[in-house]
Amino acid sequence: MNISHIEHIGIAVKSIDEAKKYYEDVLGLKCYAVEEVTDQKVKTAFFQVGQTKIELLEPTSDDSAVAKFIEKRGEGIHHIAFNTADTNEALKTAEENGIKLIDKEQRKGAEGLNIGFLHPKSTFGVLTEFCSKNN
Amino acid sequence: MNISHIEHIGIAVKSIDEAKKYYEDVLGLKCYAVEEVTDQKVKTAFFQVGQTKIELLEPTSDDSAVAKFIEKRGEGIHHIAFNTADTNEALKTAEENGIKLIDKEQRKGAEGLNIGFLHPKSTFGVLTEFCSKNN
Repeated sequence: MNISHIEHIGIAVKSIDEAKKYYEDVLGLKCYAVEEVTDQKVKTAFFQVGQTKIELLEPTSDDSAVAKFIEKRGEGIHHIAFNTADTNEALKTAEENGIKLIDKEQRKGAEGLNIGFLHPKSTFGVLTEFCSKNN
Repeated sequence: MNISHIEHIGIAVKSIDEAKKYYEDVLGLKCYAVEEVTDQKVKTAFFQVGQTKIELLEPTSDDSAVAKFIEKRGEGIHHIAFNTADTNEALKTAEENGIKLIDKEQRKGAEGLNIGFLHPKSTFGVLTEFCSKNN
């Protein structure tokens, strides 16, 4: 599996413009990028905190998964992403261990990473992502 | 404020014994400590992932905050803790910026850290903790 660190923490917000003020002005973090991920119907904003990024996720459509999350549970922490050597290999290992996958194969996510999600029903309620850079 | 990294991510689980199998056997992380925090009515289990710890939280009483969280929202990510130079100073700065505090002053948490929580109503739904070692 070879997890090196937590690559990012995804946080669902209604408005990046509003939430960014808290992360910048109160916590003193710096937003270094804003990016739209069209196939996930979200706008994202990134803040680096040591090894890990905070990734704010604002839905760009009412039918995005993040919009549904906010409707059901309110704003808050949405998922954790672990940096792995190889996302496809990590997904395969998880499946072999009885974990239900959302993504059978890696796909491209924000910042050009290879990403894949595990189903939170198999991971004690934590929506879990694997990501990797070079494979 | 001086946040250096994400110290830990707290995850509410019904049973550490059950969840530990996933973190160890599937993700390949190693549980290096199990500790009971009596005033928070939780048992905790720690896994180091790069700079950050995964902290599993199992309620030891039905009236613990973590038991209420699980009852309301199910198992899942409970809070994020930022490492700061000085928890009391970080709490003061947050309050001066209009953030509602759960803890007006730092107190002792797991692993002997000085900890203090911000109210999720002020932080876009994210239960947020500051912690520090040497003050």
